[in-house]
Amino acid sequence: MNTHVITVLAGDGIGLEVMPVAMEVLEAAIEGHDVRLEWREQPWGSDYYRQHGRMMPTDAITTMTATDAIFLGAVGHPDVSDVETLWGMLIPIRREFDQYVNLRPVRSFSGVRSSLAGDPEIDVVIVRENVEGEYSAVGGRSYQGTPFEAAHQQSIFTRHGIERITRFAVEVAQGRSGRLVSATKSNGIIHTMPFWDEVVAEVVAQSDGVQLESVLIDALAARAVRSPQSIDVIVASNLFGDILSDLVAGAVGSIGIAPSANLNPEREHPSMFEPVHGSAPDIAGRGIANPIGQIWAGAMMLRHLGHDDIATGLEEAFTAVLERGEVTPDLGGSLSTVEVGAAVIAEL
Amino acid sequence: MNTHVITVLAGDGIGLEVMPVAMEVLEAAIEGHDVRLEWREQPWGSDYYRQHGRMMPTDAITTMTATDAIFLGAVGHPDVSDVETLWGMLIPIRREFDQYVNLRPVRSFSGVRSSLAGDPEIDVVIVRENVEGEYSAVGGRSYQGTPFEAAHQQSIFTRHGIERITRFAVEVAQGRSGRLVSATKSNGIIHTMPFWDEVVAEVVAQSDGVQLESVLIDALAARAVRSPQSIDVIVASNLFGDILSDLVAGAVGSIGIAPSANLNPEREHPSMFEPVHGSAPDIAGRGIANPIGQIWAGAMMLRHLGHDDIATGLEEAFTAVLERGEVTPDLGGSLSTVEVGAAVIAEL
Ligand SMILES: CC(C)[C@H](C(=O)O)[C@@H](O)C(=O)O
Ligand SMILES: CC(C)[C@H](C(=O)O)[C@@H](O)C(=O)O
Repeated sequence: MNTHVITVLAGDGIGLEVMPVAMEVLEAAIEGHDVRLEWREQPWGSDYYRQHGRMMPTDAITTMTATDAIFLGAVGHPDVSDVETLWGMLIPIRREFDQYVNLRPVRSFSGVRSSLAGDPEIDVVIVRENVEGEYSAVGGRSYQGTPFEAAHQQSIFTRHGIERITRFAVEVAQGRSGRLVSATKSNGIIHTMPFWDEVVAEVVAQSDGVQLESVLIDALAARAVRSPQSIDVIVASNLFGDILSDLVAGAVGSIGIAPSANLNPEREHPSMFEPVHGSAPDIAGRGIANPIGQIWAGAMMLRHLGHDDIATGLEEAFTAVLERGEVTPDLGGSLSTVEVGAAVIAEL
Repeated sequence: MNTHVITVLAGDGIGLEVMPVAMEVLEAAIEGHDVRLEWREQPWGSDYYRQHGRMMPTDAITTMTATDAIFLGAVGHPDVSDVETLWGMLIPIRREFDQYVNLRPVRSFSGVRSSLAGDPEIDVVIVRENVEGEYSAVGGRSYQGTPFEAAHQQSIFTRHGIERITRFAVEVAQGRSGRLVSATKSNGIIHTMPFWDEVVAEVVAQSDGVQLESVLIDALAARAVRSPQSIDVIVASNLFGDILSDLVAGAVGSIGIAPSANLNPEREHPSMFEPVHGSAPDIAGRGIANPIGQIWAGAMMLRHLGHDDIATGLEEAFTAVLERGEVTPDLGGSLSTVEVGAAVIAEL
């Protein structure tokens, strides 16, 4: 029996609703295979913060190190500052475990109405740098509380960081059309983005079968709504990847569907799998959150753990359910979170 | 006679094609009014750069100081690095003349097919901070040419800068629906964006009749394609405003139409008016560039110079031409740049 120990962090808001459904679906998916998932549920998140003044205990990273993967719901609560929730949990996990790739596939499903005219067929993979760039802890304020107050934030890009994310993106592109778009802003952001361009171009030049196109982030945002079919694989910095993945998911009409894998490709540390959506306090507690993002993230986790066949089966199952229109209200349906989960299990 | 001296910087690429057309249209628009435009054309840009090693002469700023406004085409050439072209011309003008507001109206026209499903009626004004934030000259590289090479870029936000852009945005919102969206990323960018949120909220709290909504840039990008009608006025940092304005223009299908005013609202220095589009080297020289962005920028310039009536007349004229489908190929028409200009003049 192939046993995988999974840290489960349901987190906050709708994370608490989609997680149990996704876990049941994963259990159903592995049934009959020689695989066992051993769930280690942790109560970390904003509730934990209210009791303990921190999002996770001091030994959280050590606790998770001993597990094979992390399955995350969503973090964020209206009562707790975002800086606390995110920099107290999500971002340290990404960094401590060197999950430097944030892999975000976004695609159209026939049951999901696109926001774009002509309902274009979209199939994009965003390879987002996940541990450096614009998200840095370096910076601060000066002259606090005076009219001269200022805040500084340092973006930090390393050759090491750009090289490894580009290498990963090149592999993804090689497995698809070979077309790679690099998101840049080298005309406005003068220190880091020209460096990004240089290193990306160097890595691509050493690779076979990949055509690189560098596109300014403003133009790329416009292109994502005007001709998304012209885009296959995108390699992007932390911030640009964040914006583009929500944008493309918005374009295909699938914010509640999109998954995200925070990968340590060398497998020296556990990787983390989560939906792209957040904790959605506005709909939390009503049982109507779309569980497909969490389920798809689960499929990516199974693939990462070496179970391509099970992952593919699960993807086919939720695709069928989506295409039949058995969906939650965000996609125009009337099913509950639990009912969508049940439909996927029935399909499996 | 009311004479205004206008610095004309046609610049590069299609800037050289749309500028003369827009100038003729403006001449036609002021005909019969007590206004004269005295054009001071300057040959600055990438051609100038090839001859002189700089985008503009050392006394360019002084030369322009004596003029009432700057009318810019587009800057950028495939042979010259973007950092040279932009930081050698566009960005110094914005900064030296303290044009801290970049005002970008984007709206639907019945002749222009939207990229979005259902052809939603979009009417958004983006108020972009234009002289600080993510576009800063502070930063550099370390360990150049080694495996340890890194690049650093500092974002700088001041209370002064955030206050004044928010005050301007509040006034714009007060003149419209009162709804103001602030683009933020306070959950990921921990030093500058929480500060942005604080100062924006403070300024809005001191104002009447404005409802503020702070939206994370990733969610806002998705919302711009999913429900752009829910957005009226946006206040945004330099980078976020740049991305959002192209994105919304892309959504309404009007990249070639959107104008941009770089304003020094106190009128201590000349303001600059330009289309949102760039120099478009791919179509330059073919006479098919859409001149409406440049013409609309001209209308904004006339308004800024105190001629509301003439500006409104001009806007009505090009709107009529657009709605009749007398447009360039980018909008599905077959007219040339010059022909569209002639159609607007005929309409006037
Ligand atoms: C050319 C570039 C520096 C500029 C910017 O990002 O400000 C352009 O995209 C714009 O929006 O005016
Ligand atoms: C919560 C936030 C810090 C995060 C990010 O920007 O990385 C989120 O938007 C995401 O995309 O996972």
